[in-house]
Amino acid sequence: MKQFINSRETLVTEAIDGLLRLSAGKLARLDGYPHIKVVLRSDWDRARVALVSGGGSGHEPSHAGFVGKGMLTAAVCGEVFASPSVDAVLAGILAVTGKPGCLLIVKNYTGDRLNFGLAAERARAQGLKVNMVIVDDDVALPDLPQARGVAGTLFVHKIIGALAEQGADLDTLTAEANRIIKGVVSIGMSLDTCTIPGSPKEDRIAPGRAELGLGIHGEPGIEQVDFASARDAMEKVIERLAPKVTSEPQVALMNNLGGTTPLEMAVLAEELVRSRIGDRVRWIIGPAPMMTSLDMHGFSVSLFPATAADEAALKAPVGLVAWPGCNPVGDITLLALPDGLTPIQPIPSRNDAARALIERCCNALIAVEADLNALDAKSGDGDTGSTLATAARALLKALDRLPLADHTQLYRAIGLELSQTMGGSSGVLLAIFFAAAGDASASGANPIEALKAGLERVQQVGGARLGDRTMIDALSPGLRGLSQGETQAAQAARDGANHTATIRHARAGRASYLSEASIFGHNDPGAEAVAVIFEEVAKNSSSARATVSS
Amino acid sequence: MKQFINSRETLVTEAIDGLLRLSAGKLARLDGYPHIKVVLRSDWDRARVALVSGGGSGHEPSHAGFVGKGMLTAAVCGEVFASPSVDAVLAGILAVTGKPGCLLIVKNYTGDRLNFGLAAERARAQGLKVNMVIVDDDVALPDLPQARGVAGTLFVHKIIGALAEQGADLDTLTAEANRIIKGVVSIGMSLDTCTIPGSPKEDRIAPGRAELGLGIHGEPGIEQVDFASARDAMEKVIERLAPKVTSEPQVALMNNLGGTTPLEMAVLAEELVRSRIGDRVRWIIGPAPMMTSLDMHGFSVSLFPATAADEAALKAPVGLVAWPGCNPVGDITLLALPDGLTPIQPIPSRNDAARALIERCCNALIAVEADLNALDAKSGDGDTGSTLATAARALLKALDRLPLADHTQLYRAIGLELSQTMGGSSGVLLAIFFAAAGDASASGANPIEALKAGLERVQQVGGARLGDRTMIDALSPGLRGLSQGETQAAQAARDGANHTATIRHARAGRASYLSEASIFGHNDPGAEAVAVIFEEVAKNSSSARATVSS
Repeated sequence: MKQFINSRETLVTEAIDGLLRLSAGKLARLDGYPHIKVVLRSDWDRARVALVSGGGSGHEPSHAGFVGKGMLTAAVCGEVFASPSVDAVLAGILAVTGKPGCLLIVKNYTGDRLNFGLAAERARAQGLKVNMVIVDDDVALPDLPQARGVAGTLFVHKIIGALAEQGADLDTLTAEANRIIKGVVSIGMSLDTCTIPGSPKEDRIAPGRAELGLGIHGEPGIEQVDFASARDAMEKVIERLAPKVTSEPQVALMNNLGGTTPLEMAVLAEELVRSRIGDRVRWIIGPAPMMTSLDMHGFSVSLFPATAADEAALKAPVGLVAWPGCNPVGDITLLALPDGLTPIQPIPSRNDAARALIERCCNALIAVEADLNALDAKSGDGDTGSTLATAARALLKALDRLPLADHTQLYRAIGLELSQTMGGSSGVLLAIFFAAAGDASASGANPIEALKAGLERVQQVGGARLGDRTMIDALSPGLRGLSQGETQAAQAARDGANHTATIRHARAGRASYLSEASIFGHNDPGAEAVAVIFEEVAKNSSSARATVSS
Repeated sequence: MKQFINSRETLVTEAIDGLLRLSAGKLARLDGYPHIKVVLRSDWDRARVALVSGGGSGHEPSHAGFVGKGMLTAAVCGEVFASPSVDAVLAGILAVTGKPGCLLIVKNYTGDRLNFGLAAERARAQGLKVNMVIVDDDVALPDLPQARGVAGTLFVHKIIGALAEQGADLDTLTAEANRIIKGVVSIGMSLDTCTIPGSPKEDRIAPGRAELGLGIHGEPGIEQVDFASARDAMEKVIERLAPKVTSEPQVALMNNLGGTTPLEMAVLAEELVRSRIGDRVRWIIGPAPMMTSLDMHGFSVSLFPATAADEAALKAPVGLVAWPGCNPVGDITLLALPDGLTPIQPIPSRNDAARALIERCCNALIAVEADLNALDAKSGDGDTGSTLATAARALLKALDRLPLADHTQLYRAIGLELSQTMGGSSGVLLAIFFAAAGDASASGANPIEALKAGLERVQQVGGARLGDRTMIDALSPGLRGLSQGETQAAQAARDGANHTATIRHARAGRASYLSEASIFGHNDPGAEAVAVIFEEVAKNSSSARATVSS
């Protein structure tokens, strides 16, 4: 399998170094690579009971990510899914243990129990006070006396971490840890196995199936179950947890096993709250990756009937990115939709010249529908003409409702009509063009300046520049030409539209994804449409002048 | 593909509700489901410039995860990889914008530009001050003027968020945002495509290949490249970034695209620091998932030449789990290995009775090597006899070095010898047994009580109880029997060992994984070995007595 590693042999040490380098000096490691991989607090003065945990790597951020003030004093890291050696654990103990002693927090796996256990003996032989607790929170195997230790271990790390920081003594911490361990239950579900570095991925779980009661070392789940949905998955998990859960308020720990997306984890959290035990879940830690199994696409839920003191310890702030906090399960705050979502319809008004101009432009666009479609078919889906004609027809029908006598309102109203009747990007862009023109007009710009402001906004939003083979190539020169008269403007727009046929590389809009051959030699249909309108305006104005002068 | 969702249609709303429920009341949403999905600060009073971002979902924690004091005021969420509608964006703007105005932070995708752009126009028509900036940090396509917006967007969210919180005005924030956008460069690499909910996964990237310059919506990368290792991947990324990076100190943002393990991300961070531009990277944000692409197995690196003011803004604390902080790139603090790792060799001493006893026990074990192997072969790998015989031979050779005259030291020394010469779990357990016996002896226990303390520790560490079909089943009754004499002890150990043949369900140790058929009817080899030793001790003592009485 492909992974972002350099070699299996250097994976863990390189990753630890990456972590240490970004710890802002808060973490250090023992100089014992490659065999001794111990991460510890750099500010540790042995004045309180040291908390040491660890085990195989591959569960990040556990355990090195939880080393820091208020949680672990040191983490002893093995290779991926392999227990650290007795010497490594002993080194960790010796490095952090002062007179108050040391508590080893060990997950219930034979290798960890033995290696931490023997290291503890060696440390005791040197006169140190060392206790060990074994976390066995997994309820997947109902009858096995040796339940495994999974994500529920975090309850121990956090609560005991807070108590140790407050100066509790070793016996108190040991008793408290055993009380927590007795209360925590966990179970996990996965849709896929994890990818062990350097090994091929096992393809064990069929489509439509999931593993319930999985371990965190790639070992098969206790059973395979049918999988239908997030709700179904959470129900199956709750079914196993419910018999073990007391009626007291619970803190839930929602652990991402590695490869589950934040979207999925949030849905699962919501399902937990909605489940039949949801009313007992008062706090949730996460959802977040805390005790992962490499990239496993799964999650686990741990429940703990926390006392008020436990809650306080769980909520005590720690400066660790990996700790996602313990949040109350609350209701969702809904705010009413704001006013102003439905645009206010402008008051219609009369202006025969404006009405006539709009009619002519719309009809001109309708007249070139087939031509524009044909142009568009050379580089697109051949619908530019129809899209514009449809919008033009709708605008014609809306004429009686338009505020024709008020430029500001008219621009805004046209923008609104276009955004409602014209699909696609071009509809939105033309809506922005007219809306921005309305804004500018409201701020005192004359009608032509207002349209130029509209152009500017369209360019900002759409990102097209002159020469990018878009309608801008006709619209920009056309608007600039208006100061010299409508005929000059029409000529400038026409020149601009014709120029698009010579542009070999479209740099914006849909044509930017097309090859040179499919665009060279014919006008951009949007630019062509703009030129048609400018020509219509000029015809209109010269015929109007002709009428006046006749 | 299997995913923990209920339906594609409800995925985003359920996930947002999951997020809101755990926000401790800090977040709210507009009551506009399913079309209007706007997450906003519940404490917002419109007294400062509002910061609104958003876009398609599937990039979690972006954007809703970054809504909060010091970052975004609101996030407008579309469906997965689909821009939110104009109405949704407008609702977001109207819900949070007061007199100081609103800044829209938009990634450079056509849909987002248009929908946010038109919504901004509509809001302006209602008299609101709204500016929009477009993030285009992706340098994957060197010549495309419309670079995409990717994880570099987070620089804008965080720095502008800090400035807005301080009360900066809209024009200042807009100018600052554009300055940041101009400075940020990003590129991503992925080993696999993402899994779009409800769609089959595209299998586009061959083994040994990676995509460089990927988008965050499942679109193909700009090019496929060979992939060899984390170092190689980072080199290829740096190759693209380096020409765009100034010689000033940089802040790097290490983004997990979703499916990359924390181990891999830490290795990549280490590679970035070790790279040819590593000396310019002064701060790193992450590594963490910030702008993901669902479950994509990839990462992106964004670089920004931050000023001192930018650094301060990036470091300003925010109470958001999703923000991983901005950490200085530092050296790795190495601490010397502690003293005491190498056990001090005890001073040898003489005790002929103890020496004789150890010799007989060792020889007894060596004598039953083949028998124990045969027993073990019925349920294991047939090496228990050899393992014990090897340890016994080693102990015989060590006799001259042992502190035979001092029980405490002798127990500890035997434990040490066994842990060094005997492999596997049983070696560690016997080492713990003798080490703990040494501890107890040091605390004043008599030799037999000390051995019982050793047994207790072995049971705690190993987790085996009486009846679990382990050596405990002979050791425990044997030690208890010692108070009545060695013969009684030997009988008790023998009875215990024989009893293991009747245990149908092993509950600890290796045999717990085996079926009933493979264990029933023959003694556990560990228990058998213990019985053999007790019998040897009894023989020794009765022959000694016989010698005395003759």
